[in-house]
Amino acid sequence: MSDQQDAGRDQTPDATADEMRDQPTGPDQPARRGLSRRGFFTGAGAGVVAGALAAGGGTAFAMSHGEDDATEGVDFNNSYPFYTGTHQAGIQTEPQRYCVYMTFDLVSATATDLQVLLARWSAAIAQLMQGKPIGAVAPTQPNAVAPDTGEAYNLGPSSLTVTLGLGPGVFDHRFGLADKKPKLLEPLPALPSDQLQKGYTGGDLSLQACADDPQVAYHAIRNLARMGRGTVGTRWTVMGFGRASAGKGQSTPRNLLGFKDGTRNIKEQSDFTDHVWVGDGDVAWMRGGSYQVARKIQMNIEIWDADRVSDQQQVIGRTKNVGAPLSGNAEFDTPNFTAKDAAGDIKIPVTSHIALAAHENNNGVKILRRSYNYTDGISQFGQLDAGLLFIAYMDTPQSFIQLQEKLGSSDLLNEYIGHIGSGIFAIPPAPAQGHYLGEALFG
Amino acid sequence: MSDQQDAGRDQTPDATADEMRDQPTGPDQPARRGLSRRGFFTGAGAGVVAGALAAGGGTAFAMSHGEDDATEGVDFNNSYPFYTGTHQAGIQTEPQRYCVYMTFDLVSATATDLQVLLARWSAAIAQLMQGKPIGAVAPTQPNAVAPDTGEAYNLGPSSLTVTLGLGPGVFDHRFGLADKKPKLLEPLPALPSDQLQKGYTGGDLSLQACADDPQVAYHAIRNLARMGRGTVGTRWTVMGFGRASAGKGQSTPRNLLGFKDGTRNIKEQSDFTDHVWVGDGDVAWMRGGSYQVARKIQMNIEIWDADRVSDQQQVIGRTKNVGAPLSGNAEFDTPNFTAKDAAGDIKIPVTSHIALAAHENNNGVKILRRSYNYTDGISQFGQLDAGLLFIAYMDTPQSFIQLQEKLGSSDLLNEYIGHIGSGIFAIPPAPAQGHYLGEALFG
Repeated sequence: MSDQQDAGRDQTPDATADEMRDQPTGPDQPARRGLSRRGFFTGAGAGVVAGALAAGGGTAFAMSHGEDDATEGVDFNNSYPFYTGTHQAGIQTEPQRYCVYMTFDLVSATATDLQVLLARWSAAIAQLMQGKPIGAVAPTQPNAVAPDTGEAYNLGPSSLTVTLGLGPGVFDHRFGLADKKPKLLEPLPALPSDQLQKGYTGGDLSLQACADDPQVAYHAIRNLARMGRGTVGTRWTVMGFGRASAGKGQSTPRNLLGFKDGTRNIKEQSDFTDHVWVGDGDVAWMRGGSYQVARKIQMNIEIWDADRVSDQQQVIGRTKNVGAPLSGNAEFDTPNFTAKDAAGDIKIPVTSHIALAAHENNNGVKILRRSYNYTDGISQFGQLDAGLLFIAYMDTPQSFIQLQEKLGSSDLLNEYIGHIGSGIFAIPPAPAQGHYLGEALFG
Repeated sequence: MSDQQDAGRDQTPDATADEMRDQPTGPDQPARRGLSRRGFFTGAGAGVVAGALAAGGGTAFAMSHGEDDATEGVDFNNSYPFYTGTHQAGIQTEPQRYCVYMTFDLVSATATDLQVLLARWSAAIAQLMQGKPIGAVAPTQPNAVAPDTGEAYNLGPSSLTVTLGLGPGVFDHRFGLADKKPKLLEPLPALPSDQLQKGYTGGDLSLQACADDPQVAYHAIRNLARMGRGTVGTRWTVMGFGRASAGKGQSTPRNLLGFKDGTRNIKEQSDFTDHVWVGDGDVAWMRGGSYQVARKIQMNIEIWDADRVSDQQQVIGRTKNVGAPLSGNAEFDTPNFTAKDAAGDIKIPVTSHIALAAHENNNGVKILRRSYNYTDGISQFGQLDAGLLFIAYMDTPQSFIQLQEKLGSSDLLNEYIGHIGSGIFAIPPAPAQGHYLGEALFG
């Protein structure tokens, strides 16, 4: 493989050398579902391919054909159950490809209206997650208005999950629920990187609809918003795409900075138990629930794109191609935050994103990230307007606050991003059959 | 099957009766890739399924298992060639699931800058359509800026096509190309339904990137925009989703009105020859090219959702479930625009959308529609902001003008939609290997 290519000057080179550098080359490499067969059979010269295969002992070749190849397809018939009686879907669920996130303000101040809405939403969500419309698309009564708007008809469940959150406002003076308030459910404090815009903050309720088809996710939010009219009004929304978060066994997708995002995300069951699900330490009805923090993070991608890759790697703490920590060689190598290079400089800068966010450097704090890329088109200045819909789950919002106070103060990434949207919500556990989300509040 | 269900009152009924009504029941039904297996094995009671199958002779059961089931998956390894020397991809190509459409203003008034941009874009588009980055994601030179932004790395070609259009401005006084101007390339005249907003109109160049992964489509547009800096600035953009257009052999997808959209779209090769591809009647270099009309059509979906389905069907001229013309029973029945019901009323209202748009009622005019759903989130009034990215191809823009003058004046749909964005572009033919898009302009 040649290192002579000056890719910075040549906009249309053969990417062969670069592509080959990023292929797994041995049995120690983790499964990579994102790996495409095409890289082996086209584009790269056959001789180069043969050489790489020889170097890697042939393992890469085998890996590019099996179940690890995410490019094979998507199962739109897959569905998840709603009435589990344990955790809501859409948290530990393997991340789907699309997300529509929306928050709502309660416009009714009657507890019964809230109760009825939660009951009706629950029944509708259960139906939607099975790929069914919430009532007839075309009722047979001549003058009936259709309960379902129809655009997802016959598209399949597409792994839809809808996750409901209850904001701090649910527990204010309006509904008589103050004594049920989760212990740590308060509006987030001002954080050092905040550039919040009023149009993207807060909400009394949140709905996160994730699916492998955006039309299915949008249909769910649209119909739930419609069902809520008179009780809730819309507040802010983001539509996300791009497999920007990775579950266990998944390849790690890339955010719009072009870097893999989620390599060290929570995957083990023990971490969900210890860091995501609320246990005995909170109000009783929250057991099995979680806290959701949503942030709309705008990325100045055109400025980022003008930065040298060597600098980008210092900002993130990982290589761009492979996603390896700067102290290692492979993506899933454990970062060594004290390793130094030959010149005595620390390999992973202490102000890099992964150093600041690592649980090793934060008294063991971990959060589950479940993020998606978004674009809002073109800004008023003619620049590409895009970023990350960051959604995180944790057993206490203090985890996010602690991490973000640190990241917001020191993160080299702050030059390129701004947190423009924010919300915090308590996630109740999932109801058992015959019950509904948040029912325990009204007992 | 029961007709007693008052779905308008009950928001969470069992949708069984309605679902069954929309299944194909005999061998005369067209192939329906959108049909899901789930409808047969879950949700519906087994007895109802058995009854429906008996009535349909078992054909529906067989159809739900074969290649007609679109919910089986997506081939992210599929790619299309760029250097065909005939038509650009992204027109007759089977519609992909996502589209990012963007127009640009030329900020340089130098013909050479335009020429270099078209050559560089062509080489980059060819590379992108093969699923390759446009140069290294992480160049090996220590201080190099990456030519490719990286977020689509290893996602596969995902059926990406990028289609280039040349707006009227290319042929104005600036570049000395006035004598090459396509005969009918003029800004569209004012049309009766126009509610155009400056932020969504015009452009000297257009790029339509369609793919089965939105991250792949966005990556293409982002990198081409980046490559064009100094020569072009961004003008307007729409990101579309949802299989809102149908090719030959595809099931017909639904727009955000909940109706099937594209049932009578152009599918036959003879129609492409007669109605889409420019022949000998225009400037020579346009042979094999086409004209592109893009419209951003805002839909007042919340008002639409409050309308009775019986009225919606009169507005469209088709049934909502099946998509059959009101004169027939099955989706692909040819509409009979003179058929009357028992009371003597015409079955398909003359002011319905399909009656006004039908080639039978427009001297044989046909256009290829290649549309996608979009959402812009929530409007300043708290309403869902969504609609249709309408992109059409035709051998003369007069076809669109003629149709839209009629639709804009009489279409019952105008109460629910507004054309807020607009652009017109000449689509050059595809280059042969070693050439580039629009090369004939500089001969």
